[in-house]
Amino acid sequence: MKFGIVARRDREAALKLAYRVYDFLKVSGYDVIVDRETFLHLREFDEGDVLDLEDFDVDFIIAIGGDGTILRIEHRTKKDFPILGVNMGTLGFLTEVEPHETFFALSRLLEGEYRIDERMKLRTYLDGENSVPDALNEDAILTGIPGKIVHLKYYVDGGLADEMRSDGLVISTPTGSTGYALSAGGPFVDPRLELFVIAPLNPIPLGSMPMVVPSSSEIEVLALPPERDLILAVDGQFYTRLSPDTEIKVKKSPRKARFVRFSNEVYPKYTIRLKRRF
Amino acid sequence: MKFGIVARRDREAALKLAYRVYDFLKVSGYDVIVDRETFLHLREFDEGDVLDLEDFDVDFIIAIGGDGTILRIEHRTKKDFPILGVNMGTLGFLTEVEPHETFFALSRLLEGEYRIDERMKLRTYLDGENSVPDALNEDAILTGIPGKIVHLKYYVDGGLADEMRSDGLVISTPTGSTGYALSAGGPFVDPRLELFVIAPLNPIPLGSMPMVVPSSSEIEVLALPPERDLILAVDGQFYTRLSPDTEIKVKKSPRKARFVRFSNEVYPKYTIRLKRRF
Amino acid sequence: MKFGIVARRDREAALKLAYRVYDFLKVSGYDVIVDRETFLHLREFDEGDVLDLEDFDVDFIIAIGGDGTILRIEHRTKKDFPILGVNMGTLGFLTEVEPHETFFALSRLLEGEYRIDERMKLRTYLDGENSVPDALNEDAILTGIPGKIVHLKYYVDGGLADEMRSDGLVISTPTGSTGYALSAGGPFVDPRLELFVIAPLNPIPLGSMPMVVPSSSEIEVLALPPERDLILAVDGQFYTRLSPDTEIKVKKSPRKARFVRFSNEVYPKYTIRLKRRF
Amino acid sequence: MKFGIVARRDREAALKLAYRVYDFLKVSGYDVIVDRETFLHLREFDEGDVLDLEDFDVDFIIAIGGDGTILRIEHRTKKDFPILGVNMGTLGFLTEVEPHETFFALSRLLEGEYRIDERMKLRTYLDGENSVPDALNEDAILTGIPGKIVHLKYYVDGGLADEMRSDGLVISTPTGSTGYALSAGGPFVDPRLELFVIAPLNPIPLGSMPMVVPSSSEIEVLALPPERDLILAVDGQFYTRLSPDTEIKVKKSPRKARFVRFSNEVYPKYTIRLKRRF
Repeated sequence: MKFGIVARRDREAALKLAYRVYDFLKVSGYDVIVDRETFLHLREFDEGDVLDLEDFDVDFIIAIGGDGTILRIEHRTKKDFPILGVNMGTLGFLTEVEPHETFFALSRLLEGEYRIDERMKLRTYLDGENSVPDALNEDAILTGIPGKIVHLKYYVDGGLADEMRSDGLVISTPTGSTGYALSAGGPFVDPRLELFVIAPLNPIPLGSMPMVVPSSSEIEVLALPPERDLILAVDGQFYTRLSPDTEIKVKKSPRKARFVRFSNEVYPKYTIRLKRRF
Repeated sequence: MKFGIVARRDREAALKLAYRVYDFLKVSGYDVIVDRETFLHLREFDEGDVLDLEDFDVDFIIAIGGDGTILRIEHRTKKDFPILGVNMGTLGFLTEVEPHETFFALSRLLEGEYRIDERMKLRTYLDGENSVPDALNEDAILTGIPGKIVHLKYYVDGGLADEMRSDGLVISTPTGSTGYALSAGGPFVDPRLELFVIAPLNPIPLGSMPMVVPSSSEIEVLALPPERDLILAVDGQFYTRLSPDTEIKVKKSPRKARFVRFSNEVYPKYTIRLKRRF
Repeated sequence: MKFGIVARRDREAALKLAYRVYDFLKVSGYDVIVDRETFLHLREFDEGDVLDLEDFDVDFIIAIGGDGTILRIEHRTKKDFPILGVNMGTLGFLTEVEPHETFFALSRLLEGEYRIDERMKLRTYLDGENSVPDALNEDAILTGIPGKIVHLKYYVDGGLADEMRSDGLVISTPTGSTGYALSAGGPFVDPRLELFVIAPLNPIPLGSMPMVVPSSSEIEVLALPPERDLILAVDGQFYTRLSPDTEIKVKKSPRKARFVRFSNEVYPKYTIRLKRRF
Repeated sequence: MKFGIVARRDREAALKLAYRVYDFLKVSGYDVIVDRETFLHLREFDEGDVLDLEDFDVDFIIAIGGDGTILRIEHRTKKDFPILGVNMGTLGFLTEVEPHETFFALSRLLEGEYRIDERMKLRTYLDGENSVPDALNEDAILTGIPGKIVHLKYYVDGGLADEMRSDGLVISTPTGSTGYALSAGGPFVDPRLELFVIAPLNPIPLGSMPMVVPSSSEIEVLALPPERDLILAVDGQFYTRLSPDTEIKVKKSPRKARFVRFSNEVYPKYTIRLKRRF
């Protein structure tokens, strides 16, 4: 079995734990590779084991950090490697274990006592081209000038679904329903479902409500004059400026995010974490 | 082909249109039966064609009225007869045609130029027994004393999903997402989806948000002390008072509502009607 | 100086603390009277000191309990006696000190080291008569049948302000803005302001938003046919059933609630308590 | 009596009506001056009557356009001249008459049959300096990078009122309560009140609700690390970028907006216009 290791770069404890995991897996006889950016922040890893995330080809990735670390992996790896997330972040919706559980979790993983939790992602087509990362959480299509509302229409499978002036529009997966879509008034979505939540940001008219549509849908977003640049934010990580006449289409991605889980509970962490945070 | 006819009882125009449809179908040589309550409000139908809704066995039901008329059919018929709804109500989310389109719609129906739009329903188990109608829109589990909040917990597939003090809880189908669930802050749900929306009514804490769960889920609602009677309202039509220790379970019903549609558009009426109303 | 003592009747610790306060004030030479309902739950007080709340005439009332205890005092006393609230409840927005601070607070009170925090109340006129208690928090005008919406209009100073179908309407003081009005989507209101918040409960259309109007306003609420009985809930404590043609008017009351405070901070407790609860 | 004339520059009908008003007032013997920007778009006015808005000194301003035209006048004139607004915009909350009523309205104005509706404004201090226009509607303090939330705290009269991560914060006058603050979930505020609405934009935690505070308050907003540039948008018209350590204080302005009104109704237009739009 071959492992990849990725750590949050801005927290020393995460880098150190990453090294201990690396060391443990190496002495246990496994192949281990380390993300180049992790290495650049802690030079103790063997340089021969270092690779760019884009070049990873492993059985599992051990991610030590928060949701940002996992989103970085999702945006850059080329295959759907299962990720075991160790929570060294603030929210940690996507991570599975706390730091002190790391080695117990690795044992269970090595013994095969886990399940894979697959999550849908969404793919974005700008003028027909897919040039941006797939979103695990959401696409946010935003006014390019904060405070200047944009006039948007969106279509679901070719039918006009809504039209509103707003700060933008969030198109979210179930995984992203605890993120930006929730702040925009969207519902919490059971992660077992496959669907999109479409939620306008501070809309006029007020009657523009969040909408839930099948994951098989094709969603098209259109900006109306007065035309202003838009910003597309993928998972709050990848940003690009769009001219207002860009044809924006969103569909389910053929790719999935895959997470290692040890529990079979339906909502093992969501409700507790939501309550703690909100 | 055999037709059933049901009209809104409190609007003379609906009863008269029902008679014209009845007459047209009879002279065209079809078997037609008429709902007894419709007959009791317009005695012109042949009494030999009158039956209780519970005893209907037909190929199609022509419903002339609003959503209330359709919900009455849904709550009382024993099989999932396809319904063609003629809108003589105020909202008319479920009806398909306007009164002036009635005979054109009948022609298309007779010529087979239609599709069937199937909608999921939810079934309610009170202490293990299913003694109330299936809901096409929603179950509302409400405080028995208006203004006195109840303390509720609900579980999805055995896992605690949320706990809140509120005026009650709405468990809605996609069809019901434009009804009570929407007023409670729930999203609009594409009717092609199969899922439940669970939305608390005026909850404390404010962080209790609407939730979307798979239609395969079993939802259990539990009232906590200080115990007060609850009210269960099915589709805003059927009411029953529940003692606070009633075990309330909600699942997808094996039955479906089936509507005759002439359009293939995704959102042929929803957005227009929503905009007009809200 | 003369003190009145009122305790929460369903919590033994509150009754016992009430007795200790009573005993302390008596041995310190003050006149003390005890609420009859408190006495009926703890017979240790001297029966000669017992009076109905309606007959109290004191300089201060020491209230040991939660917001419910304070609302009971507000609804039944005949004058605006300053209240020092000791928190033995769950929320405690109105109380000032925690149980362990009771005797320290009494000392400061006796030494005159306090300020009086005056809060406006609202008065309700049913068909021109004021027969219900003034509200410190809110009037809730509710559907008499849970789940059956009512069609309401309301006027502010004679001008039509809004019209909606809903589960009811909350008319709240600033003090009540952390209560039912908040669950209905109303804002938190600084207690130094004098105004009303009017908030519909689960309205259709969704565009019916909460409204803030001057405390000098006269608010009139009108139910439209199909007419159903309404319920008026004052502070969630006093309930009365209204026929649908009752003329309901709400104005600022000439009376005030008066609380003993030891802090001059603007939001000494609100934000902390709100965060803790919501 | 001396009049100033200002028109919306991008609509020919507004410029033409402005000229007709100018002509009518001149032939009636009044002094009339014309805004330079209006003149630059319609060169028919006598150049000798043209002045910059900053140099206006008149008894009344006739504003022909929408709310944007009125906000432009408010941001640039040096005194609180009463404004008669003729609605040639899309929303027109601030304007008083429709174009066809213009000359009838002028007659009533000349005959003294009107009242003045005074509205409070808010003044912004950046590091102690007031260098931006007073807001008639709102200050929006926004993330400098759309989609990247900022961590904000705000204080009311020195007391911590709330702390949240959000897209920003709106501080609104009653006049602005039908604008951005409404989209952010704030209440509609009766224009007779003097207060501020403070509403977070898409906040986490969800429990951060809009707040209503006295107009005598001093509000201070503080950005917490990770520090990012903020944007201050005054009335959606004036924009400035702020470094994250800018000390932002907001108070009631000593200046007022003053509008000519012909009706004494409480909500002469609000509810109708709100209903029409939302």
